[in-house]
Parts: sequence; C-alpha cells; structure tokens
Amino acid sequence: MSQISPSRRVRRTPFSDGVEAAGVQGYTVYNRMLLPTYFQSVVDDYHHLKRHVQIWDVSVERQVEVRGPDAGRLMQMLTPRDLRGMLPGQCYYVPMVDETGGMLNDPVALKFSDDRYWVSIADSDLLLWIKGIAYGFRLDVIVTEPDVAPLAVQGPMADDLVARIFGDSVRDLRFFRYGLFDFEGVEMVVARSGYSKQGGFEIYVDGYDMGMPIWNALMKAGEDLNVRAGCPNGIERIEGGLLSYGNDMTIENTPHEAGLGRFCSTQTAIGCVGRDALLRVAKEGPIKQVRPISITGDLPLCDRGWDIVAGGKRVGMVTSSALSPDFDTNVAIGMVRMTHWDPGTKLEVVTQDGTFPAVVQDKFWN
Amino acid sequence: MSQISPSRRVRRTPFSDGVEAAGVQGYTVYNRMLLPTYFQSVVDDYHHLKRHVQIWDVSVERQVEVRGPDAGRLMQMLTPRDLRGMLPGQCYYVPMVDETGGMLNDPVALKFSDDRYWVSIADSDLLLWIKGIAYGFRLDVIVTEPDVAPLAVQGPMADDLVARIFGDSVRDLRFFRYGLFDFEGVEMVVARSGYSKQGGFEIYVDGYDMGMPIWNALMKAGEDLNVRAGCPNGIERIEGGLLSYGNDMTIENTPHEAGLGRFCSTQTAIGCVGRDALLRVAKEGPIKQVRPISITGDLPLCDRGWDIVAGGKRVGMVTSSALSPDFDTNVAIGMVRMTHWDPGTKLEVVTQDGTFPAVVQDKFWN
Repeated sequence: MSQISPSRRVRRTPFSDGVEAAGVQGYTVYNRMLLPTYFQSVVDDYHHLKRHVQIWDVSVERQVEVRGPDAGRLMQMLTPRDLRGMLPGQCYYVPMVDETGGMLNDPVALKFSDDRYWVSIADSDLLLWIKGIAYGFRLDVIVTEPDVAPLAVQGPMADDLVARIFGDSVRDLRFFRYGLFDFEGVEMVVARSGYSKQGGFEIYVDGYDMGMPIWNALMKAGEDLNVRAGCPNGIERIEGGLLSYGNDMTIENTPHEAGLGRFCSTQTAIGCVGRDALLRVAKEGPIKQVRPISITGDLPLCDRGWDIVAGGKRVGMVTSSALSPDFDTNVAIGMVRMTHWDPGTKLEVVTQDGTFPAVVQDKFWN
Repeated sequence: MSQISPSRRVRRTPFSDGVEAAGVQGYTVYNRMLLPTYFQSVVDDYHHLKRHVQIWDVSVERQVEVRGPDAGRLMQMLTPRDLRGMLPGQCYYVPMVDETGGMLNDPVALKFSDDRYWVSIADSDLLLWIKGIAYGFRLDVIVTEPDVAPLAVQGPMADDLVARIFGDSVRDLRFFRYGLFDFEGVEMVVARSGYSKQGGFEIYVDGYDMGMPIWNALMKAGEDLNVRAGCPNGIERIEGGLLSYGNDMTIENTPHEAGLGRFCSTQTAIGCVGRDALLRVAKEGPIKQVRPISITGDLPLCDRGWDIVAGGKRVGMVTSSALSPDFDTNVAIGMVRMTHWDPGTKLEVVTQDGTFPAVVQDKFWN
C-alpha cells in the first residue's frame, strides 16, 4: 500500500484531530474527504466493534439540504421509493437514479418538514445532480451542503454510551427514526442508524466547532465501556450485506440489480426521474443481481472488480471481498447473472493473483 | 502520513500496473480514482520534470461526453465562456458555474463537431450536473463517461518523445489544439496541453486495453531521453499558478474570484446558467481574489486552508503551499480580500504549526 498525500482538496473533518490522536493507520477518500479505514488492524477493529462500542468519524456522509416550497416534489423526483407516507422524524433509505434507472447514489433521507429534507449521501456528488434537476425544472428550492458532519456510535454498547450523553430517552428511538437531543445547549439530530449490523446511532453534528467537544465527551463517557475510535469495517459490512456505492453498484446498475427492488414503487412514485425505465425493469426483472458469495483461498486485497466465470464464460463480477474471522471464509459481494445466481452454484473468481473457487450463498452472514 | 486503503470504489486506471512498476510512493484520490503524487520524492520529481520528460497517469481527468443535436446549446449553458468561435480541433478552458455563479469545475472542453464534445474534468462529478441540466431542459443529448484515460507527456523533451510515437507532424500542434494520431492502428486524440508549465501533450487513450501498450511504448522510446513515470507536481504547479479545483477554488467561489474573469463573456454567452449572477459580479468586481503569495519559514504540509491575517483581522486563506527549491521560498496560492491583495502587502499566515510572515507577489513564479 502507498501513502496518501495531504491537500486541502481531500478535506479534513471536524473530528480529524481526534482520529489522529487515536492513531488512525489507514484512510480512504470518500466524497473528497478523509475516511478512516482502520486503527489497530482491520481484524482487531472488527472484533472490538462486535463486542464493545466505537466512535466513527463518518463526516464523509455529506448532507445535501433541500429546502423550499417544492422540496417534497423534488425529493419524489429523485427516488423511485414512494415518499407519500414519510413523516418528520423518519429516515428513509432512498436509492436515487438517472433517467435510465442507473443508480446515482443510495443515500438516507431525513425529513424535517414538508419543505425541508437532508439527504445523507454515499460516494458521489449528488449535490450536483440535485442542483441540476432543481434548476432544470425551475423548482422553488435551495440546495446546499450544510456544515454538518455525522458521527456514528456503533456496537452492542452504543445505547449505554449515547444515553450518558443525551439522556435515557435516546434509548426509545426506533430504527431509522431520529430525534432532537441537547448537547451543551446545542440541539442535535440523533438517529438510530449506521453502517454496521451491530446497532447504534448517528449524531448529525451541526457546526465544525462542535466536532471535538462531542468526540471528546463520548470518549470520556465511554472509558469504562472500552470505547475506541473506529470506522466502517470492511469485513463486518460485507458479512452484513451492507452495500457500498461505487464498490457493489454504480451508475451502470439499476436498484433491482442491487437487490433494492423493494424500494422502487415506480407505479405510485409519480414523477420520479427514471420511472419509465424502471417500470420496464420491474416488468422483466433484472438479468443480474447482487449475491453473497463465499470464496475459498488466500486472496489478494480486493482493489478491483474480479471476473466471475463458470464453464469458461464470464457470468459476473465480485465487487467486495474480505477474510472473515468469525465465519472462517472469504465473505464477498458480487453481481451474478441469473443463470448462475441460485444459492449453491459453484463459480470461479479470477483475481490478480489467480483463480479461486466460490459458491453463491443463500443469505449474507450477519 | 497514513496508508491509503484499496477498494474497487477508488478506481485503478489503465496505467496502474505501469505506475506501480515504476515505484509510485504516494497517491491522492481524484474523481474517485487513484492519482500518483510522487515517485522518487516530490523534490526529485520536480527537478526531473523541469529538465527531462515524464509520463503521467492522469486518467483521473475523466471525460464527460456530450453527444446529440443539442450538444452545442448544452455546452453554452454550462459555461460563461463564449463558445461561438470554437472550432473542431480546439481545446477550451471552460469554467463551469451554478445558477449563482459558484464554480462547479474548471474543465477543458474538446470539440469534435457541433454535436459532439468531451469535457475533461477537474475534481467533481460534473457528469451529474450535466446530466441533470440536460434532463431538466429536455435536451436531445446523451451524456456519458466514456472509457477514455488521458496520459500526459510533460517536460522540455516531450516533443521529441511524442514525435517518436506519433510522427513528426505532432510537433506542429499548437497549444490547446488536438489532432488525431495513429498508435498501432488505433486513432487517438493527442492535444498540446497538460497540467504543468514545462510543455507537452495529453494523449486521450480510448479503451482500457490500450493503456499499457502505449505506456510501455513511451517508456521504451524515451529511454535515452531519461524518461520517467511522473505526475502533476505540487511545487511546479504552484510556481506556475495552475489552480486546483477543490484546493484553490470551490463551489463557494466565482470565476472572477479565481482570477478567471477573462473566461466569462456573460454579455455574449446567452443562456449560460449563472449568467445573471455573473453579470452582477462583473459589474461590481470580486471583493477577494486568488493571489500568488510567498511565505517565509519552515511550514507544515498544507492539508487545510490557512487563515491569512493582517492587523488582527482575517483577510483571506492560503489554499496551496509548497517549498520551492528553484525560488528558495514557500510558493503559495491564496484567496485575499481586496484591502490586502496589492503586490508587496505584508500578511501573516496561520498554520497548524504557528504563524508565518508572507508577502503578496505581483505574479506567479513560472
């Protein structure tokens, strides 16, 4: 692996000082911002995440704020998911597509009111798409990137830790709901959500200057809980089937291919960009789809797509892979053609270091 | 500095195998793709670039292809630069702005015909903005990211090297013109351009599989010219006043603030998004603007904006800085308020490691 070179363009976060003090060892860049990838080691971080509680700097989940009388109309144009039942206080996972149904991002939307939403984005400049649509349709909205940086608290002890900061009422939050909670006199959005299967919260820290105070408060309050700085874990997220935009699906894929067909109410979501294309996909079904795949062998790092072959033919691509200590196999995510996507199907995976046997699984591991 | 963690999302390029074989030591991420930052050392690479010739993997300059009957109209909507005189064979530097005149990117456009352009982008997903505008205005165009990866040949010996591959006629290319040249039976776009002041070309390598053949051919042909793998050099580009989108200007800045007012023909560029806002800016002039700044002292790495202060007041921000061996000072780029932007003005720059004296320069160094 090589060094990452610093520049203003690859943005630091409100928590970078804390991340560095905690001994971050690896980074990736996500939405033109630094995202830690490991602290002790990926495996050590993984075990700790499943047993204790971690604080994650996920500032890279940038917010796009949509505000104005046409906010609701614009939001429904952006996603095939039916938003008519969405209430303030809810978080919705909302795949967003272009006019041909190609995925542009898979963000989480937070609704504050009929005329104000946040879109908490995965790795693409969704701000530019939303601004372009808003301008093109002359919608009465303002679309901005506010000075908000999410901080995740993940792991089995997350409830206990977060309650020490925000009070016991935070325990009552249901999954994908948010509430407003006080920290040192500042009201913060706290949601029960996060990019792991270990449970926890995401605190939407509003204002750069609030970053280190809340980071430090959580670290201090969690000392006896064995709290550590952590980050989205490459092994745990594959075990749990948490897809990564840019890895497991791109603009080339429909939500149906990504296994997100249940979020596509194209019949009811009138006005969604890409509706016509997705109606066609819904009628015919995808011909390839995301699958959990177990791979056997001593694999290299998955830094590129790996062709999946069967009977000498290319039938798909592995897009993420990691060696799982708990499941004693290489857990992987791949896009597989329908001819070979049934559980139990034997495949071969062609990496930069040779070919390895693989089997389609019936479900993800966690 | 920390390690960069590999994943499919942070894309490899058609030349990555060559870059690795050449001993790349540092990377950044640019348009969700790997961009080398140094090979021997930033200083060693810098001296070599100014004396010899280098091959640069600048695949991160992704292309946005705009094709269709409305391509010309769309292009003019995207930039305040007057495109009416643009001919096939020309490259135009075209700042692109949103409806308020905020810069979204500063790409180079290549015109192939009235209904086909490439936009060679800096670091933002301009594809999404262009797609959004095209869709919103129901323009008859297709907007895609083609499988094209630019390879730059930069340095005083670039003409000699490129002529060995494409023939002597490539020497006749004027600055910011391109031609079609044959490599192993494949026609390639070759432009006289590049992100240095040392002269050279950019080869738009069309098709992933052509990457390593042309990389290897250039390396072999240049052996006696002391050719090396290189990359945009952080010192040389500041000396030359080559701005970096995301570092030296962002969506917060107008082209006028970035010193690009000469590319804003808002009077004639009818239909440009942001025209009204830029007319206002042109009338009043910017109140802050990019300036070359010399800083004295042993500076840390410029991984964040540094406040510029004078008389206890904040009057700007340094956005890029590097120690220049040839000019024996820290060369820097900053955005400075009009009260303090005159050449010779003494300033103080506040870094993470203390405050340093600085002076506004009358011009960039190269």
